[in-house]
Amino acid sequence: MVNIAVLGYGTVGSGVVEVINTNHESINKKAGQEINIKYVLDLRDFPGDPVQEKIVHDYNIILNDDEVSIVVEVMGGVEPAYTFVKSALERGKSVATSNKELVAKHGSELIALAKQKNLNFLFEASVGGGIPIIRPLNQSLTADEICEITGILNGTTNFILTKMRQEGSEFDDVLKEAQALGYAERNPAADVEGYDACRKIAILSSLAYGSQVDYEDIYTEGITKITAKDIAFAERFGYTIKLLGSSKRVDGHIYCMVAPTMISDANPLYSVNGVFNGIFVNGNVLGDVMFYGSGAGKLPTASAVVSDIVDEVKHLHTNIMTTWSSKKLELADISSSRKRFYVRAEGRLTERQEEAEAVFGPVVAAELDGISGEFAFITEVMSEKEYEEKAQKFHGILNRIRVDK
Amino acid sequence: MVNIAVLGYGTVGSGVVEVINTNHESINKKAGQEINIKYVLDLRDFPGDPVQEKIVHDYNIILNDDEVSIVVEVMGGVEPAYTFVKSALERGKSVATSNKELVAKHGSELIALAKQKNLNFLFEASVGGGIPIIRPLNQSLTADEICEITGILNGTTNFILTKMRQEGSEFDDVLKEAQALGYAERNPAADVEGYDACRKIAILSSLAYGSQVDYEDIYTEGITKITAKDIAFAERFGYTIKLLGSSKRVDGHIYCMVAPTMISDANPLYSVNGVFNGIFVNGNVLGDVMFYGSGAGKLPTASAVVSDIVDEVKHLHTNIMTTWSSKKLELADISSSRKRFYVRAEGRLTERQEEAEAVFGPVVAAELDGISGEFAFITEVMSEKEYEEKAQKFHGILNRIRVDK
Repeated sequence: MVNIAVLGYGTVGSGVVEVINTNHESINKKAGQEINIKYVLDLRDFPGDPVQEKIVHDYNIILNDDEVSIVVEVMGGVEPAYTFVKSALERGKSVATSNKELVAKHGSELIALAKQKNLNFLFEASVGGGIPIIRPLNQSLTADEICEITGILNGTTNFILTKMRQEGSEFDDVLKEAQALGYAERNPAADVEGYDACRKIAILSSLAYGSQVDYEDIYTEGITKITAKDIAFAERFGYTIKLLGSSKRVDGHIYCMVAPTMISDANPLYSVNGVFNGIFVNGNVLGDVMFYGSGAGKLPTASAVVSDIVDEVKHLHTNIMTTWSSKKLELADISSSRKRFYVRAEGRLTERQEEAEAVFGPVVAAELDGISGEFAFITEVMSEKEYEEKAQKFHGILNRIRVDK
Repeated sequence: MVNIAVLGYGTVGSGVVEVINTNHESINKKAGQEINIKYVLDLRDFPGDPVQEKIVHDYNIILNDDEVSIVVEVMGGVEPAYTFVKSALERGKSVATSNKELVAKHGSELIALAKQKNLNFLFEASVGGGIPIIRPLNQSLTADEICEITGILNGTTNFILTKMRQEGSEFDDVLKEAQALGYAERNPAADVEGYDACRKIAILSSLAYGSQVDYEDIYTEGITKITAKDIAFAERFGYTIKLLGSSKRVDGHIYCMVAPTMISDANPLYSVNGVFNGIFVNGNVLGDVMFYGSGAGKLPTASAVVSDIVDEVKHLHTNIMTTWSSKKLELADISSSRKRFYVRAEGRLTERQEEAEAVFGPVVAAELDGISGEFAFITEVMSEKEYEEKAQKFHGILNRIRVDK
């Protein structure tokens, strides 16, 4: 029997308890022995809940109990999670976490500490909810050099963009609806400003390239400026708009960014809709693969956490190698990153197309019935810097969105 | 340094050598030590090829060389692969294979033998080419009870069906084109009759349910009877036709079959086109996930084989647990499996709709311009047995295809 302690009895924590109870027979079989939840740490009590007798309010009880082999950190936030996790590893306990802030900020240090102690620090649930992506990157795609990872990594923004497209509604209205449905937080900045996706692409990039990618270095743009007009024009041009976290290796440089991007139906992420996540990976010998599934939610996320617990039970005194060194990876300046750009501008197409082509070169342009006094166009491929320079010379730009394949 | 031997220098075997050479630095780093190809077994010589000096014609040289720790079987077919692999395991060598016939037929025995010897028998490349699916099923989805696996598991038939849809062409014409492009064998039966997909869904089901699913027990129907007319009607009803290998747990019974099936764009497999494969998995806590990528091809398949080699180097004297016992899983009789059915029949809709509804119950029916003297309809959900009974009472049925969500 292996004793575990769950830190935090919120959404994910209660999901972990539920998953272990629901599937205990098959889980114990796959783990090779029984998994017993000995403690649940929470500030609150839960009278009447089956875990009530396991609730403790003092982390030291868990830390000082040598019978606890695995600590499951599902509190979120950097502190006190970091202090708790670090001390658990120092005391010889493996850790499974769903905490993307913790992993993005302190992942390389905690991985190294786990290795040094012959323990494990696993974090499958920190990216893509229930989608297996961390373990496949770490253990399945080992024959490849990763050339690209691009993902729809945030279910809230994907839900909003999908709804805006389906209903022609504006961002603010759909955000309110998403909040009412519980898909968006009351303070939605972490999602809609792209901060959540930024931490996730930092984690995926660190694993893919084996070196520390600091999330603070990643250019991040949210979806708050996307309007119903942009979505209508995108559709007219054959595209859909997705918030992509993306990391690409081009001529030995690694470009990483989070930004709303127009993609066509040739891209496997095109049909990833609603709260679903999709993660596209290109390897130099493998070619393209994509992983798709529920990117959030109590049970899918808990499923990923429990898969880490099972792996840790199977590797109680053996470190599962994770290639993510503390050596900092210097990202390339995105100003030299090249793509096409969608521009929505004031005026009439007939009056301004020549001017647009004089400034930007050949463009594909359109006007739409029902959107008067505005038009839109898509440029050919150019660098971010070239685009910025040209955009200075063209008045009345209302929005610009990157366009990918 | 770990010495390996590659059995067979055909498409996959030469791919394995190429992948190991191309990415040797990163592969050796992830494996923790250098991987050295000591022998390549083939009946032929390859004068001028860099592997020429490693070529041997006698398997006993490999078997008797205690320096060889891993045997890579990429010959295909049951014999002599089975004899070679079994003797390798008996002599203390781990095995990685891409051979679906071997795994479907002798998987449980070879897994048990590897376990008994503290070795590994891995077969990531046997299903889905480069797509990581075996390792995720075995090591990532451990918190779940698997309720369904449905996959587009054969690239050749998916290429043919995609082309038929895009071009409105007939099966025979597209098959010839696929053969000319090298996407289909001169004898295409293994692909177009569904035998290849059948072995793959047998492997996936055995892993998902932990017991032996015999491929001979799986109802298998190919795509040779699908016509351009069926594809046109499918499109009219909002569906696309895919060859699906499917395994579902319903009320404690497991239904498994391979058959062309109409699916709508609500199904994530809908947009898996061309030679790509997609594998959909539903877990009782995870919900839906899908894995997508190149299901065949020299380098993608070799990438999966090499990922197994890396795993075996990391686990030289430790068995990686695989839940696939030799206990036979009795599949449920598909006659009680329930779904909707598409029927294409002789006659005019106006003249026969009443008769169709009298026999089959409520239907959605259509005629198409350009297809005269025929109409088609889709029934409500019924069992295979009910369908067969009703179909006996309705003359002039030209084709019937199962319809899924």
